[in-house]
Amino acid sequence: MTTAASPLADLDTPALLAARDAFSAAYDELKEARLTLDLTRGKPSAEQLDLSNDLLHLPDGEHRDASGLDLRNYGGAEGLPELREMFSDALRVPVSRLLALGNSSLTLMHDTIVQALLHGVPGGDAPWSSRPISFLAPVPGYDRHFTICERYGIRLIPVPTNDDGPDVEAVASLLAADDSIKGMWCVPVYSNPTGAVYSEEVVRALVSLPAAPDFRLFWDNAYAVHHLTDERAEPIDVLALAAEAGNPDRPLIFASTSKVTYPGAGVAFVGASEANIGWYKHNLSAQSIGPDKINQLRHVRLLEDASGLAEHMEKHRAILAPKFDAVDRVFRERLTPWGAGAWTAPKGGYFVSLDVLEGAAARAVQLAKEAGIAVTPAGATFPYGDDPRDANIRIAPTFPPLGELTTALEGLCTAILLAEAETLLAARS
Amino acid sequence: MTTAASPLADLDTPALLAARDAFSAAYDELKEARLTLDLTRGKPSAEQLDLSNDLLHLPDGEHRDASGLDLRNYGGAEGLPELREMFSDALRVPVSRLLALGNSSLTLMHDTIVQALLHGVPGGDAPWSSRPISFLAPVPGYDRHFTICERYGIRLIPVPTNDDGPDVEAVASLLAADDSIKGMWCVPVYSNPTGAVYSEEVVRALVSLPAAPDFRLFWDNAYAVHHLTDERAEPIDVLALAAEAGNPDRPLIFASTSKVTYPGAGVAFVGASEANIGWYKHNLSAQSIGPDKINQLRHVRLLEDASGLAEHMEKHRAILAPKFDAVDRVFRERLTPWGAGAWTAPKGGYFVSLDVLEGAAARAVQLAKEAGIAVTPAGATFPYGDDPRDANIRIAPTFPPLGELTTALEGLCTAILLAEAETLLAARS
Repeated sequence: MTTAASPLADLDTPALLAARDAFSAAYDELKEARLTLDLTRGKPSAEQLDLSNDLLHLPDGEHRDASGLDLRNYGGAEGLPELREMFSDALRVPVSRLLALGNSSLTLMHDTIVQALLHGVPGGDAPWSSRPISFLAPVPGYDRHFTICERYGIRLIPVPTNDDGPDVEAVASLLAADDSIKGMWCVPVYSNPTGAVYSEEVVRALVSLPAAPDFRLFWDNAYAVHHLTDERAEPIDVLALAAEAGNPDRPLIFASTSKVTYPGAGVAFVGASEANIGWYKHNLSAQSIGPDKINQLRHVRLLEDASGLAEHMEKHRAILAPKFDAVDRVFRERLTPWGAGAWTAPKGGYFVSLDVLEGAAARAVQLAKEAGIAVTPAGATFPYGDDPRDANIRIAPTFPPLGELTTALEGLCTAILLAEAETLLAARS
Repeated sequence: MTTAASPLADLDTPALLAARDAFSAAYDELKEARLTLDLTRGKPSAEQLDLSNDLLHLPDGEHRDASGLDLRNYGGAEGLPELREMFSDALRVPVSRLLALGNSSLTLMHDTIVQALLHGVPGGDAPWSSRPISFLAPVPGYDRHFTICERYGIRLIPVPTNDDGPDVEAVASLLAADDSIKGMWCVPVYSNPTGAVYSEEVVRALVSLPAAPDFRLFWDNAYAVHHLTDERAEPIDVLALAAEAGNPDRPLIFASTSKVTYPGAGVAFVGASEANIGWYKHNLSAQSIGPDKINQLRHVRLLEDASGLAEHMEKHRAILAPKFDAVDRVFRERLTPWGAGAWTAPKGGYFVSLDVLEGAAARAVQLAKEAGIAVTPAGATFPYGDDPRDANIRIAPTFPPLGELTTALEGLCTAILLAEAETLLAARS
């Protein structure tokens, strides 16, 4: 977090009124520009998608894996060994316990929860649905994680996030006090939206803390290979640490190629202990005829191996790093002089987390929207869409071209400054 | 059903013993041939898969649909309009209520049941899981349908199947007596495994019979376009008939291209009333980032439109019809003289249903297996694997090349004759 004092708050009321008028005039100009810009979702840009365009003609007639299996037909429920091998190192999951499945890790996480609700998980003594249950939700976090829980009546308990991951003390005391807690959402590398990278110490705590035997870490390693700097987050072997701590079944690791190749036309992975993977395969045997093995072969041909994958991700970085730099630069130029925001400078992933003046986030997002700049709704990064401080805004800078991005960020800053001045004035009246 | 008297049963005991010895000698010869042949699953042959090999280089750089949407990115949760249009006529579902989704209709059916268990369905007043429930299962039927119910503790109630579909009287009296019945498995066209085609009269009855408001027909139209003769089953508009009968939400229509293009690398469909489709889309919004739209585009490029689809299916027919002819010919030559079986002559689909002497099916399948000929386990076509008559064997003739198929069928007949002779002798001792 880049922190700053808040000189806007220090202005006397006449000066604040003058500032508000200036921001308001700037905002009127902004509206006149009739923009249509979008900072809402973590979508790859067209330029990034172009990096994988060989998928549009691969696998070029081939249709067998290394073992000679005809991938055009039924079978192969675990996914292509070559592809699982390629991601095994980055995810720190042995190939035998890493499945390559459908097109989305969100689906895998959703389906895991559904199966746990109906059947329970290994080590549990009842289906999760047999009583009210809860999940821990480090905040700010990923709205689609929260939506799954909300949809199934699973209570979400917010947990503060630090630079090195969720606040372990808070997690420990919640787990100790409440055995209805069955799960915890974790984005261990380049968290959505803060960019936090879990430290080994935090990971050791999460796999060791006393908890129900059917408590699970939903380890959404969505950004494991999505670096933005040379300072790459070193993968942590959460499965080994959990086994060491005597809780081998606690982590369920999820990942996908949605932001490596194509969202929707990618491949998703799940990795876990032998007991969990056995449970998975049993569940899949009723649900699935097997994954799209031809698309998996396309991915093997495109990316080749772990080092091909790393090279491919460097090309993404070359496109993305300037966009994240632009976020930092515009905020520094426009917000810092007024002490009007604190934001993260992530070393990977897809988001920047911006905190504005308490009570001003929803208004800033509304003003931006009315000026044609779509921003993720304030509160979306909190369970039930409820940011108790009304301060957090998630910035998704990857999709627009750099020029449009800068225009959108400038406009957003105008909206934020006006919202903050209004908020401060309202508090004084 | 081709029916036949059972002259084996009419033989006096010395003649039966002599026949048994002859069959036994033939069986010993069969074993010496050390075959490894497989009649178990309804898999397309390599020759059929070759028909869709353009999928291995399509969509050839293209990545937009007719509306200009970039199909490589997020979005498009309902699937490509062009593809839904292509299947709309054969499935008799308006495009607006037909979704093109993932790679398997089995998954869609499974997930529908899971959502109904956890949430209930439109028109219901509680989640299905709030009390014990049942499904009607026309028999013989599809084992993977049954497996889904078995996995979630849904009781399966067998219903006899006639040439024109499930026995309506039986369905009516079961529905009238038991309001825990929430679903019914239906394969309306070229049923698995009998090949039965539901008549319009039967369909009208199924959508009209009094039943619980949250009762659903799982209308697995897996073989809608999979004709084997010129006498093509005319599609029945079950949604319109259901609406006419005042039960618009009763049918849920499923289909896929698993046996049109590639199993696993295909596209699955669900079609239903507006209320059901709304429910579906709501559920998907928590579960999915959207289907693989690029693979859907591949299918649009390969098949083009409804008439392209029909032409493509004619090529399948040219490969498959001789295999089904072989089944009929071999059974007629080998079983008919002994009155040793009655089998279906389907006009489409993937299976032949064979009834042997009561009490002899499991033994015949075991003998075949020991001679290297894998046949679907006897009983697999019944809930809980339990064929009360131990008479039904499902024949899947599509996968092996014609020569191998004929060898396997000949061997199976040898096993059946021996099993029947043994069974008759045991009854007399």
